[in-house]
Amino acid sequence: MLSYQDRSLYADSVPLADIARKVGTPAYVYSAATIRANYRAYADALDGVPHQICFAVKANSNLAVLRLLAREGSGFDIVSGGELHRVLAAGGDPARTVYSGVGKTADEIDMAIANGIQSFNCESEAELGLIEAIAARHSKRVAFSLRVNPDVDAATHPYISTGLREHKFGIDIGEARDVYRRAAALPHLEAAGVSCHIGSQILDPTPLMEALDKVLDLARHLAADGLPIRHIDLGGGLGVAYRPEDPAPAISAYGQRLRERFAGAGFELILEPGRSIVAPAGVLLTRVLYRKRSYGKEFMVVDAAMNDLIRPSLYQSHHEIIPLRRSDRGTVVADVVGPVCESGDFLARGREMDNAAPGDLLAVCTAGAYGFVLASNYNARPRPAEVLVEDDRWRIVRERETYAGLMRGEEP
Amino acid sequence: MLSYQDRSLYADSVPLADIARKVGTPAYVYSAATIRANYRAYADALDGVPHQICFAVKANSNLAVLRLLAREGSGFDIVSGGELHRVLAAGGDPARTVYSGVGKTADEIDMAIANGIQSFNCESEAELGLIEAIAARHSKRVAFSLRVNPDVDAATHPYISTGLREHKFGIDIGEARDVYRRAAALPHLEAAGVSCHIGSQILDPTPLMEALDKVLDLARHLAADGLPIRHIDLGGGLGVAYRPEDPAPAISAYGQRLRERFAGAGFELILEPGRSIVAPAGVLLTRVLYRKRSYGKEFMVVDAAMNDLIRPSLYQSHHEIIPLRRSDRGTVVADVVGPVCESGDFLARGREMDNAAPGDLLAVCTAGAYGFVLASNYNARPRPAEVLVEDDRWRIVRERETYAGLMRGEEP
Repeated sequence: MLSYQDRSLYADSVPLADIARKVGTPAYVYSAATIRANYRAYADALDGVPHQICFAVKANSNLAVLRLLAREGSGFDIVSGGELHRVLAAGGDPARTVYSGVGKTADEIDMAIANGIQSFNCESEAELGLIEAIAARHSKRVAFSLRVNPDVDAATHPYISTGLREHKFGIDIGEARDVYRRAAALPHLEAAGVSCHIGSQILDPTPLMEALDKVLDLARHLAADGLPIRHIDLGGGLGVAYRPEDPAPAISAYGQRLRERFAGAGFELILEPGRSIVAPAGVLLTRVLYRKRSYGKEFMVVDAAMNDLIRPSLYQSHHEIIPLRRSDRGTVVADVVGPVCESGDFLARGREMDNAAPGDLLAVCTAGAYGFVLASNYNARPRPAEVLVEDDRWRIVRERETYAGLMRGEEP
Repeated sequence: MLSYQDRSLYADSVPLADIARKVGTPAYVYSAATIRANYRAYADALDGVPHQICFAVKANSNLAVLRLLAREGSGFDIVSGGELHRVLAAGGDPARTVYSGVGKTADEIDMAIANGIQSFNCESEAELGLIEAIAARHSKRVAFSLRVNPDVDAATHPYISTGLREHKFGIDIGEARDVYRRAAALPHLEAAGVSCHIGSQILDPTPLMEALDKVLDLARHLAADGLPIRHIDLGGGLGVAYRPEDPAPAISAYGQRLRERFAGAGFELILEPGRSIVAPAGVLLTRVLYRKRSYGKEFMVVDAAMNDLIRPSLYQSHHEIIPLRRSDRGTVVADVVGPVCESGDFLARGREMDNAAPGDLLAVCTAGAYGFVLASNYNARPRPAEVLVEDDRWRIVRERETYAGLMRGEEP
């Protein structure tokens, strides 16, 4: 997505400084070409085995991004009624949409059944009972997978590791066969698959393959029990290189390993990639407001803050920060901090980076996933604009919030 | 604010279950009486010494809360143009409003000067220069304090400790006298005070008093240098008891210590309390969606999540969770988790609590500060409604967001 041309940073064929000047900062910029390329890397690698790619809406739910993926043929993985609403608004196909999550409400399940989603990834026996009751009211038979917890260590940040026994997600894989057996007695449910999801930002696919083997083994037993299991949903989780040296697996290499496992397996593979499709396709543009030095330490105060991008603060995440205009001014070791009034508001700490001056523009890289979707109005800060680049053109796909907009819904 | 009457939990004279049934869950509920009582505790304790209480808008910026405090006579501490906009909308007095924060933009400074705010708490020499330039354009002389960093350990969470030498905030106190001297040459600035703010949720006021002594010492030197220093802004930071056993100091006791220090000191005291006024005045109401047991561990899945209240996830904060209806069903040790799809989504872990069943209502206590203001739309979840209780009446002071509202500003 990013390249320097004559010292200026471009997103595809657009100089990012043009966008920053016209839209203001902070602003998220996404590359349509990169999103498409990453989606196609999955599709190409899995060519020849039955599969369905369901983009994980939670990673980036901007309607323009969803619409672009829907046009590529992507299905969707949703986790709430709000995400279903977005998929429908973006022209996504509910019949290629799977619904995950531990806390589906009755209203949300009702909305999902009414719209004819493909399948529920069920997280508990209580949820199965609720779906059965609502499906009965609709006189429909609905497909489900049990999300099983394979007790596999995804080796990622504890907040985004989800497949260990202490996690809230899924059903103990050792008990799953009994649960499927009991579910077979529920007339409005059909056991269409088995699902799991062990975590996010996984740099070594070995635990994913380990989980897959456990799930495949369960699926074969269930099929032998006479259940109509058709698909295995392996969830998402493939990591990306936030640092240039991160050993992120290529989508194609991961897809190739999955293809080998699924060739002739007799099951369709459902994947729920999110981060690996959109993270490298986004940057957050920000402007340096102040340089300051306190007790011998350098600070670069920028106009993006933890309310715009909370990942460094919440997950201690690393994002590369590079200048929109390359200079000869050398580097500096600095904390890059925002205007929010807490020490938790930082984008980088002790970072060796371009020795930028007030007024200079910077790009916070690999910010296309879990960026805007986690943004808040903390410190009464309007959320940034979102921009989509299509080759040499770009357009605003979400307007920057206004002060007046922040008070909408409040007593005047 | 909270009491059980005949097994039902009341906020002042309103049964909280009434609100939950009519407004839905999750919902924030604030007590006007508690907010007023906490504000008055500061005012009463400081009676007799010149002082001004500037409520820290960042803690809770709901317009109804700000309006209530403005009517009590409160001034305001703001950290952004958005917060100034809110103070003005709520009828707050800009002439009793101080503006803090490391990242004030030129537009924000312009807006603050145009509206005649009382004083800037300046965080760097570069900011002084910017304010001088903008004040000159307005042909106004504007008051400022330097926020000094006293290098005092507030003994609180690292993200909300702000007065150590490694923090982005303030100016090295050892250099402050020189900076004031240079600022005296700037014709549109007036050195009206000295400010500091060492952190938040401070349970032992000793570091606050230690910082105050350093600042008072500096202020006396500056006055001797001939600067027109009138006020000392000690910031906020007084902690509250999130756990019943937390040794939170009474506002009155803290105020008494400050009164002793300021009696005859010749300076006005400005305080910026936020959390200590509103945190105990708010609860987050939530409903149990599911109980589940996985690998022998109990989970209580509720309809409030990290997008509604991020404090447990971001700061590892404790919030008491109590039932809206007392029962005889005993207790359970459980993780209280929300519907958001990550393991970082929890409200409590390993908590011994009421053995609540699906459908039951719970109150997450001490949620009136840094609750709604940090809420996001993560997982496309609409932000909760906010409700204000006035004795035996209540009203919605911010409507729950809608699915359609979440897409406002996006390309259709």
